[in-house]
Amino acid sequence: MAQGDPDHFPKLEHLGDAVQYVELIHEIIQHIDLFDDFDEDELAHFAAYMECYRAPAGTEIIREGDPGDFMLMIIEGTVEIMRKDTTGVPARIGNAGPGKTLGEMSLIDGEPRFASCIATSELVFAVLDRARLTHLIADEPRIGVKILMELLMLLNQRLRVVSKQLMQCLEKRLPRIS
Amino acid sequence: MAQGDPDHFPKLEHLGDAVQYVELIHEIIQHIDLFDDFDEDELAHFAAYMECYRAPAGTEIIREGDPGDFMLMIIEGTVEIMRKDTTGVPARIGNAGPGKTLGEMSLIDGEPRFASCIATSELVFAVLDRARLTHLIADEPRIGVKILMELLMLLNQRLRVVSKQLMQCLEKRLPRIS
Repeated sequence: MAQGDPDHFPKLEHLGDAVQYVELIHEIIQHIDLFDDFDEDELAHFAAYMECYRAPAGTEIIREGDPGDFMLMIIEGTVEIMRKDTTGVPARIGNAGPGKTLGEMSLIDGEPRFASCIATSELVFAVLDRARLTHLIADEPRIGVKILMELLMLLNQRLRVVSKQLMQCLEKRLPRIS
Repeated sequence: MAQGDPDHFPKLEHLGDAVQYVELIHEIIQHIDLFDDFDEDELAHFAAYMECYRAPAGTEIIREGDPGDFMLMIIEGTVEIMRKDTTGVPARIGNAGPGKTLGEMSLIDGEPRFASCIATSELVFAVLDRARLTHLIADEPRIGVKILMELLMLLNQRLRVVSKQLMQCLEKRLPRIS
């Protein structure tokens, strides 16, 4: 971690930057949506901008409603994604494993977390925060543009899925006018 | 339009590039989500990469299901946004006026259009396609990164809204397990 960088997980074991995991990342790359278009050299450059942590099973690594300006990439292990309903009762809305990214929305807009992520096994994950992303774009614009494009494609794909689900849900709820 | 560039609207009046509208764009800039962070000089550079068209009221400028790799920015006039329900009946899902952008999802992924856009008045709009965006990023990386960031923020904001609506809709539909 460069001097002055924030430590987003002071209570967890800090494993250093993600360069050590480049080979592992490359192995599971076919499952990593975000890195489909990256070659090994680009991955290694990118990995140097991420910090890695290990968390025991049961750790809440992201908490719904908390502020946050970073995303995570799962390297080893699994998480479940929970969100409170309008009465405050948490419901599982998904799960994620190696290669999946979490928290991109808050990385981009700095708004409170949409959902909570809880480790369902021991977890190794890499963190990319806004300050590092900004540095990366300034230092390595070619890789920076690629990451922005990948994030765009990821959010875009998710927006299409969620929009379609919303249309179908609204259609089932609303009385038809015929 | 540079030689070899596709004409996305061969049946409409082609008005040339968007540089002529920079002052108008600057005037309505407080309503233009996509350009909040652009100064006039950056806008002028960006505008040179967009082509403008005029369409009479009633024109379907984007058709649900069609292929497409461009987005539009409305400069003058209004559109309504329609999407077919599962039985094929079109329903109005929104409307948009000056400064709003349409079709970003297909610009990014080239997948079929999610909804149709029909001019509800005479319309002047600017077009940005993937080839031009790629050129812009290569020629003017600083402005290119800014546009990608703005697109990210736009899609991100929309994803938060739609995800929240979906959660609320599902909650109302599903029987509560208590």
